[in-house]
Amino acid sequence: MADLAITNAIILTADALGTRFEGGTMLVENGRIAAIGTDAEFGDAAENAKSVIDARGMLVMPGLINTHCHIASTLFRGLVEDLPLEPWLQRIWKAEAAILNPQTTHLGSLLGLAEMALGGVTTVMDMFWHPHETVRASRQLGMRISTGGIVFDAPGVTGHTVEQRFEEAERFFQDFTNSDDVIPAIMPHGTYTVAPDNLKRARVLADRHDGLFCTHAAETRFEVDVITNRYGRSVIRHLDHLGLLDKRAVLAHCVHLDEEEIAILARTGARPSHNPVSNLKLASGIAPVPEMLEAGITVSLGTDGAVSGNDLDLWLAMRLAAMLHKGVKGDARLVSTQQALAMATLSGAETLGVSDRIGSLEIGKEADFIMIDLDRAHAVPLFDPLTHAVFSTNKSDVRHVFVGGKQIVRDRALTGIVLSDVLAEVRDLAPRVQASIA
Amino acid sequence: MADLAITNAIILTADALGTRFEGGTMLVENGRIAAIGTDAEFGDAAENAKSVIDARGMLVMPGLINTHCHIASTLFRGLVEDLPLEPWLQRIWKAEAAILNPQTTHLGSLLGLAEMALGGVTTVMDMFWHPHETVRASRQLGMRISTGGIVFDAPGVTGHTVEQRFEEAERFFQDFTNSDDVIPAIMPHGTYTVAPDNLKRARVLADRHDGLFCTHAAETRFEVDVITNRYGRSVIRHLDHLGLLDKRAVLAHCVHLDEEEIAILARTGARPSHNPVSNLKLASGIAPVPEMLEAGITVSLGTDGAVSGNDLDLWLAMRLAAMLHKGVKGDARLVSTQQALAMATLSGAETLGVSDRIGSLEIGKEADFIMIDLDRAHAVPLFDPLTHAVFSTNKSDVRHVFVGGKQIVRDRALTGIVLSDVLAEVRDLAPRVQASIA
Repeated sequence: MADLAITNAIILTADALGTRFEGGTMLVENGRIAAIGTDAEFGDAAENAKSVIDARGMLVMPGLINTHCHIASTLFRGLVEDLPLEPWLQRIWKAEAAILNPQTTHLGSLLGLAEMALGGVTTVMDMFWHPHETVRASRQLGMRISTGGIVFDAPGVTGHTVEQRFEEAERFFQDFTNSDDVIPAIMPHGTYTVAPDNLKRARVLADRHDGLFCTHAAETRFEVDVITNRYGRSVIRHLDHLGLLDKRAVLAHCVHLDEEEIAILARTGARPSHNPVSNLKLASGIAPVPEMLEAGITVSLGTDGAVSGNDLDLWLAMRLAAMLHKGVKGDARLVSTQQALAMATLSGAETLGVSDRIGSLEIGKEADFIMIDLDRAHAVPLFDPLTHAVFSTNKSDVRHVFVGGKQIVRDRALTGIVLSDVLAEVRDLAPRVQASIA
Repeated sequence: MADLAITNAIILTADALGTRFEGGTMLVENGRIAAIGTDAEFGDAAENAKSVIDARGMLVMPGLINTHCHIASTLFRGLVEDLPLEPWLQRIWKAEAAILNPQTTHLGSLLGLAEMALGGVTTVMDMFWHPHETVRASRQLGMRISTGGIVFDAPGVTGHTVEQRFEEAERFFQDFTNSDDVIPAIMPHGTYTVAPDNLKRARVLADRHDGLFCTHAAETRFEVDVITNRYGRSVIRHLDHLGLLDKRAVLAHCVHLDEEEIAILARTGARPSHNPVSNLKLASGIAPVPEMLEAGITVSLGTDGAVSGNDLDLWLAMRLAAMLHKGVKGDARLVSTQQALAMATLSGAETLGVSDRIGSLEIGKEADFIMIDLDRAHAVPLFDPLTHAVFSTNKSDVRHVFVGGKQIVRDRALTGIVLSDVLAEVRDLAPRVQASIA
């Protein structure tokens, strides 16, 4: 007997074939998808489930996967504006140094994860200080998180030595390897902030624990110029030369690439995370997404942090991925609706090395899914649910969210935490944040 | 005694100086703003109003103004996808010809206006068939509308002759000149669909009634090439050569302009409407907004129709206006947050020739304002309400909407019509729409 049956739904499975069901049923057992198909195939099996949700007027699809974020930086949302990346980063880092400790990082993580869960994101890859606190917040909300120790040559927010950072990263792997809800990684910040030896050491550590290696790469022209001057090679060539790229490498941004660098990504299997909102707002540029897709590269989507966004809206990232490149290149055939949906779902799962478990609604996968309200003026008429998902769905249309069969958002409210308490705590902290950059 | 007092609000007046009040009060009398300032200035005057709304936790700002739309085309939302503008337009026109009549146009207008009102838009400039029906729908919802007769040389949806179209346009002016809620215009479709003599005749008619002249201009490279081949001049030069441009001319899109054409717009005072969502999705290109602003041109914002959007989200248009040009040009100083807000408010009112009446919250202006819920995860912390309005506010955050002091949205529900009835009627019509392009 199924634990949960979703019936009468429009279902976008987001599988590789684009399978969909209109008038569809999905059964969940032990947190996994036990069956999925058209209502007629199921008969009594759906009615007899322990719990039944009639999804008439709702669209069911996989939870979204955000492959690049700095979640707890929500504490600094809107604090510094209208500056290009480098001077902007200097001010943000000043505020972070003054404010962040394990407790405030936990608070900021709750805030950012709450926003994302309410908006239908079920899995996030995060790069931030105090990653144990991010995991703690993610567990309170019932989400999945990929994160790990940061590598950063300078003292940074925590003031630790590189040696201490590697100890922390090692401890993170030990604590979370083999957990269902944490996908452990190591997070060297970037080629301009981490020396080659430390990048290589991070990669060795990741490999020893079968973990992911995630870094910022080729986000700005300035960064590419710095690295080219320093090492005689552009960022992607530098990473490749150091032997750091394979399908376990997640590269945030990848805006400034030439043809040969795209070929390097294709050859090595490294995984770029496209962050269009951040790249536009910070004037970083426009990633060659159509070219990367054409080369067979797995491209996923990120929101980046709320300081560069200013929210954490993966629907907006998906919609921009689907339309930005059409407009910039003057070709409406670039980045299809199906490709955009994949970037926010199955390609995200592939990027995190967990596409056997999540990223699409298929039998045997974990039941990470969202239910979208279609009873909205902007959702009518509905000729094609895929088009609706990519181009008209708004994060506020997300009504229910499930992770591993467990409901984490019910009727637009979090089940794991009291949001108003979190908002009140953040508001109390805000004057100190404001003062930190004075 | 005031009819309505809004107290304890964060108020963005969107006036030319960027005036704002934190802990602000606004009094409304006879549909107009009677007073506005900090709470402390008011004493009993606010408490004694006939009706008081405590706006603690809400942001108050002017209703948004959408200067380019084809509202009733919401009936065809998502029907035709993944094509560039010209072949896409051919299929849309086929569906329009099969489906549109006064009754269906009224239905589609209700649908699109409902979406916009719920999202905080209070005034719309619309180009569509059966404009009397658009006015009827707008009045049911309590919004303001600028529209009028279409000029189109071919028979089009209504099958009328050009002579009949001018009679209709004349009748529209006669019916709605001097009305508070309708800003009459004439709507020649574009230089590629309307011959020079008919464009000039439309302009004469508009001038005789002191009305607006609105047309599509320089939306695609293809259009510019067609006009240059046909008349030996690019679109803007052609319009200028015909003597059609002044500050009563509203030019939708203005994507493909050279420096001299920008100078023509600046010299004549013609008003471009920037439609970034449509221009990206249909691969039309990217309008030179920073250059137009630099030249002192009044640029406003449009959503375009839901067939090219696929929704009517002016918040998204504003956010894109603020960030797209930064990313494309690689300069974070382009299009400031203040400029983006103006494009969606006061510049929209200037474009429609009604900035003495609407577009900002100032004493004596009509009380067209919206109240934004700040009790959301993505609205906390709030260091700067302007940044929040432009970069984090979501159309679903709009809680109350007032036009001329009358509440048209209360707690996210329309006061003028029953939305569920409209949605049901549109759903009933959808199979016929689908069949129309088979």
